[in-house]
Amino acid sequence: MKNVKFAKCVKCGKIYEATPNLTNCSCGGILDIIYDYDYIKSVLTKDKLAQRSDNSMWRYRELLPVEETTEAPPLRVGWSPLYEAGRLAAQLGIKKLYVKDDGVNPTASLKDRASSMAVAKAREAGAKVIACSSTGNAASSLAGNAAAAGLKTYIFVPSRAPKGKVAQLMTFGATVISVQGSYEDTFDLSKQAIDRWGWYNRNAAINLYLSEGKKTVGLEIMEQLNWVVPDYIAISVGDGCTIAGLWKGLKDLYAIGFIDHLPRLISAQASGCCPLNRAIETGEDWHPMEENTLADSIAVGVPRNADKALMAIRESNGLTVNVTDEEIMAAQKLLGRTCGVFGEPAGVTGTAGLKKLCEEGKISPDATVVSVVTGNGLKDVANAIAHCGDPISIPSDMDLLLKAFAENNIVVE
Amino acid sequence: MKNVKFAKCVKCGKIYEATPNLTNCSCGGILDIIYDYDYIKSVLTKDKLAQRSDNSMWRYRELLPVEETTEAPPLRVGWSPLYEAGRLAAQLGIKKLYVKDDGVNPTASLKDRASSMAVAKAREAGAKVIACSSTGNAASSLAGNAAAAGLKTYIFVPSRAPKGKVAQLMTFGATVISVQGSYEDTFDLSKQAIDRWGWYNRNAAINLYLSEGKKTVGLEIMEQLNWVVPDYIAISVGDGCTIAGLWKGLKDLYAIGFIDHLPRLISAQASGCCPLNRAIETGEDWHPMEENTLADSIAVGVPRNADKALMAIRESNGLTVNVTDEEIMAAQKLLGRTCGVFGEPAGVTGTAGLKKLCEEGKISPDATVVSVVTGNGLKDVANAIAHCGDPISIPSDMDLLLKAFAENNIVVE
Repeated sequence: MKNVKFAKCVKCGKIYEATPNLTNCSCGGILDIIYDYDYIKSVLTKDKLAQRSDNSMWRYRELLPVEETTEAPPLRVGWSPLYEAGRLAAQLGIKKLYVKDDGVNPTASLKDRASSMAVAKAREAGAKVIACSSTGNAASSLAGNAAAAGLKTYIFVPSRAPKGKVAQLMTFGATVISVQGSYEDTFDLSKQAIDRWGWYNRNAAINLYLSEGKKTVGLEIMEQLNWVVPDYIAISVGDGCTIAGLWKGLKDLYAIGFIDHLPRLISAQASGCCPLNRAIETGEDWHPMEENTLADSIAVGVPRNADKALMAIRESNGLTVNVTDEEIMAAQKLLGRTCGVFGEPAGVTGTAGLKKLCEEGKISPDATVVSVVTGNGLKDVANAIAHCGDPISIPSDMDLLLKAFAENNIVVE
Repeated sequence: MKNVKFAKCVKCGKIYEATPNLTNCSCGGILDIIYDYDYIKSVLTKDKLAQRSDNSMWRYRELLPVEETTEAPPLRVGWSPLYEAGRLAAQLGIKKLYVKDDGVNPTASLKDRASSMAVAKAREAGAKVIACSSTGNAASSLAGNAAAAGLKTYIFVPSRAPKGKVAQLMTFGATVISVQGSYEDTFDLSKQAIDRWGWYNRNAAINLYLSEGKKTVGLEIMEQLNWVVPDYIAISVGDGCTIAGLWKGLKDLYAIGFIDHLPRLISAQASGCCPLNRAIETGEDWHPMEENTLADSIAVGVPRNADKALMAIRESNGLTVNVTDEEIMAAQKLLGRTCGVFGEPAGVTGTAGLKKLCEEGKISPDATVVSVVTGNGLKDVANAIAHCGDPISIPSDMDLLLKAFAENNIVVE
C-alpha cells in the first residue's frame, strides 16, 4: 500500500507493518493506520474526485488502506444522500442543517462501511471466512456484505438476540451460533473459534481497518458540501468506533489540504448509557455504565473504542450531550415529519442531541450543522409503534370524519 | 411540457391535455402520456446522460412528464444498484443475471419512484395536500416523500392495517384515518374526502403520472447495462402499475433510438393471487381472485392497472409464471445468500419466478436476465422469521461447538 506508512498503537505508540490480519497491540491498545499524506496529495485532487462516477465509499480509494489491486466488494455501500433540512433548521433556530441518511445503505446502516472494508481486507488476507460476535447492525451488515462477495460468515450471538435480527443473518446465509449465556460468554466462544480456525476477525474492538471504512461518511459529507466546512457534525456514539472514524476522515482531508479547518463534533449518547460523554464531562477516565436505553445500537456500557473516541471528541473541541429515550423518540418523529427520513432510535440520537443543545442555547443561530442518521427505522419498528400515537379510527362516514377532524383540531387546507 | 404531446385513454383513445390534476378518462379507462419523441431525441443523447452527476431518477428529466421549471422533490429516489449476480446465474444455469435492488430507496421500495413523481405533479398543481388510500409501500412512500417536500398527507387505511406500517406513516407526520371496514369502505371515504377538499390524488388506479415515475427503473437498468438489451426482465406483479411502468420506460428508450430492440418481460405473480397471469395464460379477460399469498405487496385480487399491464406483457411477448409462498420464501434466502440482497416477499417474487422458469427449461442457458427486487426485507421481518430456520444453540463451550458443527454437517474451512 503506497498510501500507508504503518499502523501505530494509540496507547503506547508501538509501530506495526499494516498487514491485513493485524489486530491489537501487544499492550492491548487499538492500532491506527498512519498514511503518507504527501503521496496521497500527489495522486488525489478535488477535480479528480469530482470526475468519478463511482457513487460508493470506494470513490476515495487513495485514502483507504487497501492494495491498489484489491477489488471493491460487490454491495454498493456509501455515497448516501445529504439532505438540506431547511424546515428543521428553522425549527431548531440555526442557519443551516444537513441530514446525512446512512439508513439507505444495502443492509440499512452505517455499519456497512466497516463491513465493506472488512470484506476487502479479508480478501487481501486470503481468508474465505469472516467471523464476529454481535447481535446488531454489525452482524447483519457483515453477513450481507460477505454473502455478496462469496465469503462464508460465522456469527456468534447471545441467546437473547431478537429473532428478527437472527432471521436477517440466516437469510444472508450466515452460520449463526446462539450462545446460551451472556455477551461475554458469546465473545469468548467466538474468540476461541476464530483462533482455532484462523477466520478473519470483524470485531470493532480488534480490527483497526473498520474505522477506516467508517471514515468515508466524513469524506462524503465534505465532498457533498463542496468542501465548505460546517461548524458542527452531530452523531450518536456507542462503542466509539463511528465517531472516531468520522474524525479520522475529517483529519485526513485536512492533512491533504482539501479543507482548511476542522468542524467540532457533537457526541450524542443516551442518558441511560453515556460512559464516553461522562468521561469528557468529568475529565476523568471512562467507567462502565449500565445499558439503560431503548436505542439498542448505542447501548454500550463498555465501549471498545474508548481511546480513539475520546481523543476525537477532545481534539475537535467537541460538545457532548446526553438525551433521554423520550427525547430520542421525539427526534425520530421530528426527522420523519420535517425531512422524510425514518431513522432507528440510535440513528436519530445525534439529531436529538442537536435539538437539546439548541434549546439550551449552546449552538449559535449562525451555525451550520450536519446531523448523521446512522441506521434505518425499519430496523426497529417495535419502538416506533410504541411511540407514534394512534390514528383516527372511524367508520366510513364523512360526517364522522368531519367530527374527528374537529375533535383533533385538524384544520383541512 | 415541450416533451409531452397529450394524454390518451388506453381503452377508448380519447385525448386530453396533460394537466397535473388529470385523472381517468370519462369512459373509466386509465390514461397514458404520449411523448414527442422527436423533440426528446433533439435534446437528449447518451453522452449527455453519461455526464450527469445526478444519481437519482430525475437524471431522466427529458423523459419525464414535468415542466422544465419543476424542481425534483427532495428525497433521493432511484439510481438503485444493479448487481451482476454470477453465483446465482450459475445456480440457475443461465449465462448472466443482474439483480436490481430497489429496496435501498428512501422508504425502501420501488414505490418511491411513483411517489416522487406524485410530489412533483402535486406541486405543479399548486396542491399543498396529497391523499391516498393504501396500507402498504405506496402509503409509506407517499408520506415520506411528501414530508420531505413540506406537503401534508392524509392517508386512509383499513383498520386491519399492520401496526408497523401505521407507525411509519405517523412518524412521517401523515394524518392517518383508520377506517372500520373493508378496503372498499376505506377507498370510498378517501374519495369523498379528496373530492370535497380537492387534495392531490395519489392512487395508482387514477393517477396516470405514477407509472411515468416507475418507468425510471427501466431507464436505469438500460443505462447501467450500457444500453445492451438483456433477453428478459423479471418482475413481480400486483396491481400492474409497476410492470406497465417498466415497459413504458423500455419503449421510450426504443422510440428515441437508445436501444435497438426490446427485452421480453417475465411477469411473476403469486399462485394464490394471479389474475393478470391467468388472463394471459387463458387468453380471456381477467377476473378477480382471492388474495391468498403472504407476499402482501402483490396480493391484489382486483388489479387496478390491468389494461396497461396486460398490454405490456403481450407486447413484449412476455412469459408468465406463478409461484407458491414456499417458492417465494426460498427465493428470499437464495438472493440473501448469493447476492447479499434482502428483499421482502413481494420483492423477490420476480426472482422466484425466474428460478421456476429456469427449472422448467423455459429460459435458454445463453440468456441474460435482469431480476428486479422491488422492496426491502426489513418491511416484513415476521415472514423471514417464520421461514429462516433455527440457529445452532449451545452453551459457550468449544467441544459442544465442534459437536454441533458435526451434527449439522458444517465443515469448517
